[in-house]
Amino acid sequence: MPAYANRVKNMQDSALYMRGLFGGMTNPDIISFGGGAPAPQALPADILHSIANEVLKSDARGCEALQYSNTMGLKDLRQAVVSELLAPSGVEADVDNVLIVTGGLETMNLLCQVYINPGDVILVESPAFIHCIDIFNMFEAKSIPCECDDIGLVMEDVEAKIKQYQPKIIYTVPTFHNPTGKTLTTERRKRLAELGSEYDVIILEDDPYRDIRYSGETLPTIKSFDKTGHTVMANSFSKMFSPGSRLGYAVARKDLILLLMDAKIATNSHTSSLDQVLCAEFFKRGYYRDHHQKICDLYRQRRDIMLECIDKYFPQGTKRTYPDGGFYIWVELPGGLDSGQLLAEAEKKNISYLAGESWFVGEKNVGSNTMRLNFANAKEENIRYGIKTLGQLFTEKLK
Amino acid sequence: MPAYANRVKNMQDSALYMRGLFGGMTNPDIISFGGGAPAPQALPADILHSIANEVLKSDARGCEALQYSNTMGLKDLRQAVVSELLAPSGVEADVDNVLIVTGGLETMNLLCQVYINPGDVILVESPAFIHCIDIFNMFEAKSIPCECDDIGLVMEDVEAKIKQYQPKIIYTVPTFHNPTGKTLTTERRKRLAELGSEYDVIILEDDPYRDIRYSGETLPTIKSFDKTGHTVMANSFSKMFSPGSRLGYAVARKDLILLLMDAKIATNSHTSSLDQVLCAEFFKRGYYRDHHQKICDLYRQRRDIMLECIDKYFPQGTKRTYPDGGFYIWVELPGGLDSGQLLAEAEKKNISYLAGESWFVGEKNVGSNTMRLNFANAKEENIRYGIKTLGQLFTEKLK
Repeated sequence: MPAYANRVKNMQDSALYMRGLFGGMTNPDIISFGGGAPAPQALPADILHSIANEVLKSDARGCEALQYSNTMGLKDLRQAVVSELLAPSGVEADVDNVLIVTGGLETMNLLCQVYINPGDVILVESPAFIHCIDIFNMFEAKSIPCECDDIGLVMEDVEAKIKQYQPKIIYTVPTFHNPTGKTLTTERRKRLAELGSEYDVIILEDDPYRDIRYSGETLPTIKSFDKTGHTVMANSFSKMFSPGSRLGYAVARKDLILLLMDAKIATNSHTSSLDQVLCAEFFKRGYYRDHHQKICDLYRQRRDIMLECIDKYFPQGTKRTYPDGGFYIWVELPGGLDSGQLLAEAEKKNISYLAGESWFVGEKNVGSNTMRLNFANAKEENIRYGIKTLGQLFTEKLK
Repeated sequence: MPAYANRVKNMQDSALYMRGLFGGMTNPDIISFGGGAPAPQALPADILHSIANEVLKSDARGCEALQYSNTMGLKDLRQAVVSELLAPSGVEADVDNVLIVTGGLETMNLLCQVYINPGDVILVESPAFIHCIDIFNMFEAKSIPCECDDIGLVMEDVEAKIKQYQPKIIYTVPTFHNPTGKTLTTERRKRLAELGSEYDVIILEDDPYRDIRYSGETLPTIKSFDKTGHTVMANSFSKMFSPGSRLGYAVARKDLILLLMDAKIATNSHTSSLDQVLCAEFFKRGYYRDHHQKICDLYRQRRDIMLECIDKYFPQGTKRTYPDGGFYIWVELPGGLDSGQLLAEAEKKNISYLAGESWFVGEKNVGSNTMRLNFANAKEENIRYGIKTLGQLFTEKLK
């Protein structure tokens, strides 16, 4: 067979890691705190049943749902993004600033198509969302980690690394960060937008969790501080609607949206019309608010139970974050415990989590004691049982 | 803003052309023979209404339709591909040879991710499906046209160009070719598979029309002659099911499928679960065969009417193809008529078609008298009126 492209070798390690993540999602016997899936109870199956029942009957809308569509996305879905999601976040935009994409990650992909040549630098968090690192590897970008403290990216380090590496893009998940659950402060958000403008760097604000907040006050987006169009928002309908429908949106300057659209035409023409129609009707018919309230209540309860159980059962000296929203709690185990090594033993007890070490990109011997716990997916009794069991395992190992 | 990646300049012309194509799809007042859309009457809205009504009620299947899924695609959909689509085409495969993709074109995209470095050569037909050329441009491949006669790619020219250019991929639409409607003969299919194996080149068999045949005998796929795994099939559910659902599939060696899967993880994680569930049930519940018969009958009639009208109304000396299936008739106008120049006048009469010149890639001053006519999308009376009007326009211009 012919020689592979250079990017195949470049993404080899992260691709293998991602294969494992996606391959491990399907065992129903395991209590999984590992993946990023929402709770089955939070999926709006009944609502979609009702919408599909009406929409596929109607001639014009039914045909729209099954026919080719334009690449920008359904106008009424983009309108819902503008009025129901962006306006409350302080982002002034109109429908021409919004591109509907096939899952939130497609924005990273399209943005790389537009900006990244092999060898270009992207600054990332430490630890960083590994799936995006895999994308950046596919584009042969060099991902350089920046220092993070308890409130996210440290601006002094970001500025120093901008000067050192001349990055094209700075990638961040500012709200309820994946994997750590941390949230970047308002002051730093403002500064990051300014750094993008000052140094001519794209700030890629990946914010799929921002709309599911359970406590604390909503913070302005980085994009709301952007005066020059250097900030690009990537967001997703996966957490508030349905991950299976692969719907997301990008928000950017109009000239950049057109280039992202060009790349999208050459990627998949457009996003599923049926999924878009259902999601647009979900907003149009006013289902969003109640559903949003319902899932936030469900997840808040699960978060609180998991926090309570970690504090009760995990060994003394354990550190953990307190996420005001999103899906993840980040744990640092004490006493040299290695979360990667212990995972096999946990899985023998039918419990899984995500060991954190691989998420520290480009750094060695960091994070072997860390883990990401998804509190959203598992039922209450499974959270109680699972965290207790993990706590006992870790405590035993410390002796 | 930072400098764009090199690929942006490389795809500039084709991207602008594609923007125009996608932008022009939406005017309902125009009788369009230009796009590639199926007939609204051929979309299985009623069937999907009935399936959605049952599926979204069922707990397990309903949750599967809305939740994250694995990247390879739904197993029962891949099984339907193997037994209902590949086996009748003489392709021996099992589910691990099949990757579900987001629209038929995603296969080209993923294959380029795996094989194409900037500057690599892809041999293409002349004229070639311009949308794929746009993809190849995004990957900075060099698309080199090969000679085609009335029965498709000329093997002697392909072999000469393999020797001259050492291509990584040979791209072909062998059945009811887009844009010409021509079909590659069995003998040439066999030879092309052999050339792939002999010279270590990937044969990319893009075959989205093969299953909608209205006359003549079904030919074996190129893949069925492939002994070394060099042939990769790209196919789509757009024409037989629904283009809006963005569903397609790739068929390849298992080791290559895994690499395509890696690229897909880094592209969009997986294809819409809901669309996959609906399509899988479409096959499982036995809707496919009747629906297939129904749309073939509809399209056969439209093809025959358009052929009849072209022969009756287009000026003497017009050449046209006779497609045994698919969507397109290719026309060569006589007497130096320029289809590109005449398009504006046709559109003033609310009729559009696709001018062929831009589809001759890398060749200059070729095909200015050619046009592609989609007979599938328009109603009978509109075909009669539209072709008659075009015929009168062209005849007038000849005087």
